[in-house]
Amino acid sequence: MSHVPPHVVIVGGGFAGLWATRALARDAVRITLVDRRNHHLFQPLLYQVATAGLSAPDIAAPLRHILRRQRNVEVRLGEVASIDTGGRRLGLEDGTALDYDMLVVATGATHAYFGHDEWAPHAPGLKSLDDALGIRRRVLMAFEHAEAADDPAERAAWLEFAVVGGGPTGVELAGTLAEIARHTLKNEFRHIDPAQARIRLVEAGPRVLSTFPERLSEDARRKLEKLGVDVVTGHAVEAIDAEGYVLGGTRVPARTVLWAAGVAASPLGALLGVPLDRAGRVHVGPDLGVPGQPEVFVAGDLAHVEQDGRPVPGVAPAAKQMGAHVARAVRARLAGATPPAFRYRDMGNLATIGRMAAVVDLHGLHLRGLPAWWFWLWVHVLFLIGFRSRLVVLINWAWSYWSYQRHARIIFGRSTRAAPRTPTD
Amino acid sequence: MSHVPPHVVIVGGGFAGLWATRALARDAVRITLVDRRNHHLFQPLLYQVATAGLSAPDIAAPLRHILRRQRNVEVRLGEVASIDTGGRRLGLEDGTALDYDMLVVATGATHAYFGHDEWAPHAPGLKSLDDALGIRRRVLMAFEHAEAADDPAERAAWLEFAVVGGGPTGVELAGTLAEIARHTLKNEFRHIDPAQARIRLVEAGPRVLSTFPERLSEDARRKLEKLGVDVVTGHAVEAIDAEGYVLGGTRVPARTVLWAAGVAASPLGALLGVPLDRAGRVHVGPDLGVPGQPEVFVAGDLAHVEQDGRPVPGVAPAAKQMGAHVARAVRARLAGATPPAFRYRDMGNLATIGRMAAVVDLHGLHLRGLPAWWFWLWVHVLFLIGFRSRLVVLINWAWSYWSYQRHARIIFGRSTRAAPRTPTD
Repeated sequence: MSHVPPHVVIVGGGFAGLWATRALARDAVRITLVDRRNHHLFQPLLYQVATAGLSAPDIAAPLRHILRRQRNVEVRLGEVASIDTGGRRLGLEDGTALDYDMLVVATGATHAYFGHDEWAPHAPGLKSLDDALGIRRRVLMAFEHAEAADDPAERAAWLEFAVVGGGPTGVELAGTLAEIARHTLKNEFRHIDPAQARIRLVEAGPRVLSTFPERLSEDARRKLEKLGVDVVTGHAVEAIDAEGYVLGGTRVPARTVLWAAGVAASPLGALLGVPLDRAGRVHVGPDLGVPGQPEVFVAGDLAHVEQDGRPVPGVAPAAKQMGAHVARAVRARLAGATPPAFRYRDMGNLATIGRMAAVVDLHGLHLRGLPAWWFWLWVHVLFLIGFRSRLVVLINWAWSYWSYQRHARIIFGRSTRAAPRTPTD
Repeated sequence: MSHVPPHVVIVGGGFAGLWATRALARDAVRITLVDRRNHHLFQPLLYQVATAGLSAPDIAAPLRHILRRQRNVEVRLGEVASIDTGGRRLGLEDGTALDYDMLVVATGATHAYFGHDEWAPHAPGLKSLDDALGIRRRVLMAFEHAEAADDPAERAAWLEFAVVGGGPTGVELAGTLAEIARHTLKNEFRHIDPAQARIRLVEAGPRVLSTFPERLSEDARRKLEKLGVDVVTGHAVEAIDAEGYVLGGTRVPARTVLWAAGVAASPLGALLGVPLDRAGRVHVGPDLGVPGQPEVFVAGDLAHVEQDGRPVPGVAPAAKQMGAHVARAVRARLAGATPPAFRYRDMGNLATIGRMAAVVDLHGLHLRGLPAWWFWLWVHVLFLIGFRSRLVVLINWAWSYWSYQRHARIIFGRSTRAAPRTPTD
C-alpha cells in the first residue's frame, strides 16, 4: 500500500475551486491548485472596478496568500493546454505536466456573443480584472473624447452608451454609469455636460432581471429609469461595430457598448471529451462527477447540473456550494464509498441599481430600496475575503455614496485620441 | 482694450503645474492645463505601488476632479508635439493647437540611462503609474518563476534582485523589496524560500542618500543591511541585459533589475529652442522665466535654477514652490511689472527604509528610527490630495505595517512563463 497521499489537482481559483481546496484542508491528500492568474477574484464587485468605484486590489487577493497556512496545497500559476483523462495527466502551456489521482475542473465562464464573435472587440464583457480595467478606461475616455470633439455628431456618439443584457451585471453597470454621468462628473468638463450622456440598457427578453420575481423586475426598471437610464426590453441588438449598434432596424452611433448578455463555459470543458450543453458547460452527474470518468469532477459555472428540472444557475453561492460538495465527493471516492448527490440551496437573489437602491429576493421575503441596499452591502462585504479588504471597501463605499465620488478614476497608459487599448498583455 | 482675459497655458499636471494652476484661481485669466494623463500623481509614494503596498488609485486623483470648482481653468488631455514661441502657439499630437499669452512648461523628468538607453527594457525606472504597475508585475512574477523553475541556476537568477541608484527612491525600493522577500511572502511558496532572495542596492557614489548628512546616510545603510539588503557603494553598474548585469567586472545573473539612478528632463525642454543643461533641463532666470522669451516660464524638475551656487533639487517641495512662484511671475508680467525672483526654501529631506524606519533631516534636527517614520508617514499623508485618499492610505499602511502584508499584490494580464509585458499601450 503506497504511503504517498493521493494527488488532487484543482483547476481554477474562483469560488468553486477555492472552496473545494479549502474544504480538503484536513484530508490526507496533496493538492495542486492551478490558475492562470495569481489571484482569487470577487466577481460580484467587478462592475465596481469597471466603473471606477473600487480599485482592482480591493476585490482580489493572491491565491498564495489565501492558502498560505494550508500545508497540503501548492498553488501553481499556469494555463492548462491538454487533459489526458485516460493517462490522468494534465498538460500545461509551459510544457510541464501534472499527474493526478483526482481532478476537479472549475474554470468558470467567459463571454459569449451568440455566434457573433466579431462583436467582441467593440462590446467588451466583464469577467476578469483586465476586463474591468479595460471598461473603466473606455468609459472615462469616452467623456474625454466628447470634451475634445469639434464635430457635434462625433461628440454625440461619444456621449452615447449602451449596455447589452438586462441581468444583474447589466443592471448594475447601467445604473452606475448613469450615476457617473449625472453626478460624479458634474462640473468637471467645460465643453460638455456629462449629464447629457445617454445610457441605454438593452434586454432581449420581456423584462430586466428575468430570474427575479416580476414585482422586483418592475421595481428595478423604475429605479433605472429614475436614474435616467433608457431601458429597452423585448428587442435584441442586431449588430455591433466600432461606430455603433443596430437595434430594431435602426442604426445608433455609439462609441461605448458594453456586453453583459451572454456567457459561455470555459474552453476547458471541451478538453474533457464529454458531452457539453449549448453554452459549452459539462453535463455532470448528481454527484458533480463526469460520467464515465470516476476521477474527474466539474464545479462552478462550468458545470451543468439539473435540479428540479432546471439547471443550477451560474451564481456565486452555487459555485461555492458545488466546490464544497466536490470535496465531499473526492473524499468519498478515495475512501471507496459512493459520493453523495449535490443539492443546491438557493439562498435568493440580489442586485443593486445604484446609490442606495437594490432589489433582494429571499424566497418570498422581498426587500427594496434602502433596506435592500443595506442588505446587499453587508452580504457583499461579508463575503469578501480578508478583513482589510472589507474595511477599505466599506470606507470607499461610504465615501462614494456620501459624495457620489468614485475613487478609482485612473486611466492607465497613454491617453491620446487613438483608440484606447486595454492594459493586458 | 481687449476684454478677453489672457490665455495662460500650463503643460503638466504634476506638483509644479498643478500648484501654478491653483495659485491663479482668482486671477482674471483663462487657463488651459494640458497633460497626457488624466491624473495628478503623488510621486513620493510611487514605490509603494511598485511594491504592491498601495493600489494605483490610492495615490492619484483625476485632474478634472481636483480642479472642478476652479471656473477659470479647463483641463485638456493631450500631448504636446510642438512649441512655436514666436507665434505663441502650442501644437498637440492630435493636430489641434493652443494659442497662448503666457506659457508654463512643467513636464518634469523621466528616466536617464547615462547614454545606455539599451538598458531601459531590462531595468525599468519609476516615474509613472504605468512604471509602478510594470515593476510590481515583474517583482511578483520573479517569485512565481522561481517557484516553477526546475533548473537551480534559473531559480537562483529569478531570486536575484538589483536596484541601481542609492538615492531616496532606490533606498525605498530596496528596503521594501527586502521586506516582501523576508516577511510578506513567508510560507506562501512550496519550492522556494523567498527569504533566500538576494536584494542588492548598487550606488556608484561613496554613500547612499548622498544629499543627506553623513550620519543619516550611515544610519540608512545600517538599517538596509539589517533588513538583509546587500548594499554596494563606490561601484557603478557596467552593463545590463535581459539575463543580468555586470558589476566590478563580474557578471551577475539576475532577472530583475530596477533603475533608480538617473533622471533626465522631459523632452519638451528641447522644443523651446533654448540652452539646456546636461540632463536636458532648461536654464531659467531668477524669476523662472526663459531668457529671451518673456511669455514663457518653466517650473519643477524641468527647470534648472541656481541658488547659492547649486541647482535647486528635483524634489516635490521645490516643484510646488516653483509652481506657486510662476503664478506670481505670470501675474506680475500681465500687470506690466517685473516678476519677483524665486527663492527656494529647503524644508529638509526624508526617506523611509522600510517598516518603521526612516531618516529625516530638518536642517540640523535629525530624526531616525520610529520617530522619523511617524514624521515621514504624517508628512506624506498630509500632502496627499483628498481626505478619502488619506484615510484609505492610512488604513492600508496601518494594516501592512502591523501584519507585513501588502494589499495590492495583483498581477494584471496573463501570467505565463513568457516574458511579462507591462500594462501600458
